[in-house]
Amino acid sequence: MVNTTHPGNIGAAARAMKNMGLSDLALVDPVVFPSGEAVARASGADDLLKGARVYAALEEAIADCTLVIGASARLRSIPWPQLDPRECAAKILGSTAQTAILFGREHSGLTNEELERCHYLLHIPCNPEFSSLNVAAALQVVAYELFYAAIGHPTAKATTAMEPLATGEQMESFFSHLEDVLRDIRFLHPTKHESSILRRLRRMFQRAQLEEKEIHLLRGILTAVQRRSAPSGE
Amino acid sequence: MVNTTHPGNIGAAARAMKNMGLSDLALVDPVVFPSGEAVARASGADDLLKGARVYAALEEAIADCTLVIGASARLRSIPWPQLDPRECAAKILGSTAQTAILFGREHSGLTNEELERCHYLLHIPCNPEFSSLNVAAALQVVAYELFYAAIGHPTAKATTAMEPLATGEQMESFFSHLEDVLRDIRFLHPTKHESSILRRLRRMFQRAQLEEKEIHLLRGILTAVQRRSAPSGE
Repeated sequence: MVNTTHPGNIGAAARAMKNMGLSDLALVDPVVFPSGEAVARASGADDLLKGARVYAALEEAIADCTLVIGASARLRSIPWPQLDPRECAAKILGSTAQTAILFGREHSGLTNEELERCHYLLHIPCNPEFSSLNVAAALQVVAYELFYAAIGHPTAKATTAMEPLATGEQMESFFSHLEDVLRDIRFLHPTKHESSILRRLRRMFQRAQLEEKEIHLLRGILTAVQRRSAPSGE
Repeated sequence: MVNTTHPGNIGAAARAMKNMGLSDLALVDPVVFPSGEAVARASGADDLLKGARVYAALEEAIADCTLVIGASARLRSIPWPQLDPRECAAKILGSTAQTAILFGREHSGLTNEELERCHYLLHIPCNPEFSSLNVAAALQVVAYELFYAAIGHPTAKATTAMEPLATGEQMESFFSHLEDVLRDIRFLHPTKHESSILRRLRRMFQRAQLEEKEIHLLRGILTAVQRRSAPSGE
């Protein structure tokens, strides 16, 4: 983070980094640091603040880096190679380089001189009418893309270990039970609407991809209805 | 945003939304609002703060919504269908539903009761050792994914015209009707299992994203059950 004005943003950035498994925070010429406000906003990421390296000049901070990427809200006159956060994450994960991502000042970002030290500019796609993200929010997005790419987004599968789904056979028994009950309660009459009602119900329950346990629950309800509506009464 | 404690987070959320082209901010029982701190952190997104709808209760805020997604940091005991931010964006862009994304309290998130009103839970992949994102930072990530998906797939919205979906209000009336019937037929008893049965049914029907017509059909069935199981008999 280069020449950050508000210590709260440094704290929020530390929190965002730690949330996404990053730890190496470097501060270039921070206006206020250390700071209680930074600790408050770090909300438990104090270790990153304590471990932060502080430099007087950008050159020192990136001296050991072989890939430098600079976040930039504005389009620049020089056509510098540009990445969005997703491309940035792919680039970093696909590389063995010692990498720095630079985030500039709250109001003016990085200077042209600082950007010229970068291999790539990083631009977060956003509303062109209101394009200045808070610096910690921008860092959050970039760090999230890195984390997401690093875990190989297994989340599609990790939709928490789901319960076993009902088999086709269980579904058919359920539909047939349902149809019996609908006749018992005289909701279904042998008219031509009958089949369209059954089709609708089938479509609806199939769309829900019922679990076995849900089928048991539904059939329990159907049985309770049958008991109450039996001609003999209760 | 539900019951947000710090007005600064409301301001930061407004900024994040506007950065990503979103505008419809609803606040449920905010602790401090309006607030100068919110305006300061909104950093020019004052229009969103001015236009924010404020509600006393969540039900009112989502009454007209047909797809409700709740951000949740914790894994829940019940395996509710879960999305990550990218899947969430795809789901929303592929749907014509009136959608709400809920963000809970800074320290405790959404209550189980609030989560039960959701069709999906939204979880941001992150460091399991430090998994609580700032609420505005979480909103920034989700809004970014929406914007990114929207510009990347401008045709995603052109999905087939669906039947109108049931509103939150219609769903609640249905659940309350269903509960009445389950009591009438003595399927429900005031035991501790009661709430877990109701929660399972709610989750199942919400997952199906019911259409208005389906709700009418289901309520017709419930009414028929009530007629047959009335103590007076037929």
